[in-house]
Amino acid sequence: MFLSKLDSLSNAQKLVSDNHKLTEVEEIPLFEAHKRVLAEDIIAFHDSPPFDKSAMDGFAVIGENTFGASQSAPKQLKIVDAIGAGDFSDKTVGENEAIVIATGAPIPDGANAVIMKEYTTTDGDELTIYSQVTPGENVSPKSEDIEKGQKILNKNTFIRYQELGLIASAGYDTVKVFKKPKVKIIITGNELVEPTKEEIDKAKIINSNQFTIKALVEDSGAVAEIIHAGDTFDEVKEAILKASEDYDVIMTTGGTAISKGDVVLDVVDDIGEILFHGVAIRPGKPAGAGVVNGKMVFTFSGQPVAAMSQFDMFARKYLFEMQGRAFDFHIVHRESQLKIPSQLGRTDFIRAVSDDEYAKHVLNRGSGIIRSMVEANSYIIIDENDEGYQKGDIVDVVMFDSLLW
Amino acid sequence: MFLSKLDSLSNAQKLVSDNHKLTEVEEIPLFEAHKRVLAEDIIAFHDSPPFDKSAMDGFAVIGENTFGASQSAPKQLKIVDAIGAGDFSDKTVGENEAIVIATGAPIPDGANAVIMKEYTTTDGDELTIYSQVTPGENVSPKSEDIEKGQKILNKNTFIRYQELGLIASAGYDTVKVFKKPKVKIIITGNELVEPTKEEIDKAKIINSNQFTIKALVEDSGAVAEIIHAGDTFDEVKEAILKASEDYDVIMTTGGTAISKGDVVLDVVDDIGEILFHGVAIRPGKPAGAGVVNGKMVFTFSGQPVAAMSQFDMFARKYLFEMQGRAFDFHIVHRESQLKIPSQLGRTDFIRAVSDDEYAKHVLNRGSGIIRSMVEANSYIIIDENDEGYQKGDIVDVVMFDSLLW
Repeated sequence: MFLSKLDSLSNAQKLVSDNHKLTEVEEIPLFEAHKRVLAEDIIAFHDSPPFDKSAMDGFAVIGENTFGASQSAPKQLKIVDAIGAGDFSDKTVGENEAIVIATGAPIPDGANAVIMKEYTTTDGDELTIYSQVTPGENVSPKSEDIEKGQKILNKNTFIRYQELGLIASAGYDTVKVFKKPKVKIIITGNELVEPTKEEIDKAKIINSNQFTIKALVEDSGAVAEIIHAGDTFDEVKEAILKASEDYDVIMTTGGTAISKGDVVLDVVDDIGEILFHGVAIRPGKPAGAGVVNGKMVFTFSGQPVAAMSQFDMFARKYLFEMQGRAFDFHIVHRESQLKIPSQLGRTDFIRAVSDDEYAKHVLNRGSGIIRSMVEANSYIIIDENDEGYQKGDIVDVVMFDSLLW
Repeated sequence: MFLSKLDSLSNAQKLVSDNHKLTEVEEIPLFEAHKRVLAEDIIAFHDSPPFDKSAMDGFAVIGENTFGASQSAPKQLKIVDAIGAGDFSDKTVGENEAIVIATGAPIPDGANAVIMKEYTTTDGDELTIYSQVTPGENVSPKSEDIEKGQKILNKNTFIRYQELGLIASAGYDTVKVFKKPKVKIIITGNELVEPTKEEIDKAKIINSNQFTIKALVEDSGAVAEIIHAGDTFDEVKEAILKASEDYDVIMTTGGTAISKGDVVLDVVDDIGEILFHGVAIRPGKPAGAGVVNGKMVFTFSGQPVAAMSQFDMFARKYLFEMQGRAFDFHIVHRESQLKIPSQLGRTDFIRAVSDDEYAKHVLNRGSGIIRSMVEANSYIIIDENDEGYQKGDIVDVVMFDSLLW
C-alpha cells in the first residue's frame, strides 16, 4: 500500500529524469518546422544579405558627392542607369553620377550610399538632390545578418517564427528535427461513459480525462491516441503491452475499482519496473510511474484535477526533453492575498488566480473539482519544507501559460 | 508619398479595430476544440458528480458509528455489500454496518462517510476500523463541481485543456466555436527565390517572409496559404481580388520595385479603400492596411523584421478578435540595462532580451536583421510621447510568449 511510504516530489521527478530518452531525428520541410526542435546545427550556406543592398527606394550615389546639399542649396547629379528589385547594374557610379535603385537591389560598383527618392527631383537624366547622405547611409551591408559558413543556430533550438526566417535565409528548405513523441493514453474505469446530453445510468460518470490529458499532451508538443481498457488485470496488461510496442510513452488514468486494487501498477510491476507509486504531493498523491519495454508509463489518478497536476509535475518535462527541449518550471514571486495552510513534508500545487503582483488561491480545492482548474491561471507551489503561508507572504507561482509548448 | 503624413500607431490600430469582423460559427467534435473559442454559453446537462461519490477506496459507513475508534481502541462493523466503480448498491447502511466501496462509486443510502481501506482490517464480513471519520469525510458531494442547468462557461471563453474537461462533464461531445480565419499571404518581389543550398543568382534574395508570416498567422489561431505575385499592378490586383473572394484576411509582403512604386497600395486604392499607409513606428514605417471586398488587407514590408513587427502591431489583435478572443498587449515593467534613444512622435518596438527584472535591447536594430528577432524574447515599447530612456529607467516590455494564441 503506497500510503505507508511516499516518495518526495523531487525524488519521484528525478526517477523520471533518470529514464530520459530522446525521440528519433527526422528531416521535414521547413514549412512544417514551426514549433519543432532543431536536431542539427544550422550552418549558413549564404551571406544574408548576399550583397550590399539598398534599404530604400532612391538613388545610389557616392556619399561624398552629396555633402552640403540642402533644400536651399540643392546639387545636381547625372542618372546613368536604373536597377529594379531582382536586377543589377553592370555600370559603375562615377563622380557626380547616380543610379536609380529599388529597395532590396544591389548597390552598384562605385556607389556607397542611397539618397531617398523623396529628397530628390528628376528631369530626364538630371537628378536634383535636396539633402546629403553619409557613406553607408541606407545601405544594408552584405552579410550583416548572416555570414556564409557561420553557425547561426544550435541544435536543440526551439523553432519560433523568427528562427524559420533565419533558417530559410541560410538556405535550408528542409530541416532535421526531433520527432514528436507518440503517446498512448489508456483510460481505465468501468464507471466511465462518453459525454452525452441524455440521462446517464446510475453510478456512471462522464469520462472527461480523455479530453484533458490528450490536450495536455498536445500542449507538450506531442501527439496522443486514446484507448479504453476494462478494469481487469488482463485487459490493462494487454493494452499496456501493445502500446509499449508502438508508442513512445504510455499514460493511464484511473485505477479505482476495488476488484482490481491498483491494477495498473500491478500490471507495470508484472511486465516492467515500477519507478515510484505514491508521492508526497497534493493533489495527486497516488501518482505512479514505471517502465515497460523501455517505454515510460505514467499512471495518473482518475480524479480530473489530480490527473492534470500529476501531468504537470511529471509528464510535461519528460515530453519536452524527449524532443530535445529544456523544461523547468518558471517560478515567479507574488504576494499571497490569502492565508494558505499546508503540511510539512508535502508539496502542494495550489490552483490560483495570479496577476503581475498578487496570487490568490482558488478556494474549492477538491481534486475532482475541474472548475477550480478552469478558474485558475496558475499554481502556487508550496515546498515540502514549508508549512504554509500567511496573507501578505511572498509565494512561488507558476503561470499556466509558461507551461505550454 | 506616405512619408509626408504618418499616422500615429494608436490611430492606425483604431482604423483596423473599426473594421473588426467575427468569423462564422461552426459546430465541431469536442476532441477538436482544444485552443478554439466558444461561440455559445455552456449550460450543464448534468450534475457533476452525478451522485455523492466516494473519493477513496474503503468502506461506506455512518460517520457517527466510528467516533472514538483508534489504533488502541478499534471498533467492529459488519460488511453487508460491496460496490465497484460503475456499480451501485440497493442496500442501506444501518447502524454499525459498512459497505465496501471503490473510489468513484456512489455512496449507498444510510452512509455519510468513507473510511479508507488502509485504516481497516477484515475477516470475512467482520470489519475492524482503527480510525474515526467525520460525516462527509472522503465523500465528493453530488454537484460539487457542476450543477445541472447552470451556465458553467461563457461564450468567448478560450478552450484550454481544463475547459475541455468541464465541457465534457457538462454533457457536450460537440461544441460551437468561431471558425479559424483563412488568411491569404501574397508575397511580392521579383528578387525573391526559394531557399536553396546552391549558389543564388546575383541580385536575388531568399524569400524568408513566407515562412515567418505563415507561422505568425498560426500563432494567432488562424490558417494561412501562400501565393507569389509578380511586381506588376495587374498581377497584384488579380491576386488580391481573387483572395478577397475566398479568404477572410489578406496579407501582402514587399513592394520594393521602383517600377511599381507602392504597387500594393495602388491596387488597394483602385479596388477598395486604404485605411492608412505610413505609420510613425520603428521598425515598419511603410505599414499599410485597407479593405477590399469587405476583407481586411494588411500590407507588410519586405524587410523581415519590419514585417514581423507590423504583424504584431496590427494583425495579431485583428485575428484574435475575429475568433471572439480578446487581445491586448500584456505590458510588464522592467529595468532597462542600457540607454535607449528614441524620437518624440514615433512609437518604437525594440527587440530585447528580458527576464523577470531586467530588459536589455538587442544592439543590432536594422529592420533586415532577422537575427535580432532570434536573439530577442520581447519588445521594449517606447511610446510616441517618450524620447527614450536612460540605463536604469523602468520601461514597458511585452514578452513574445505573451503574444501567442
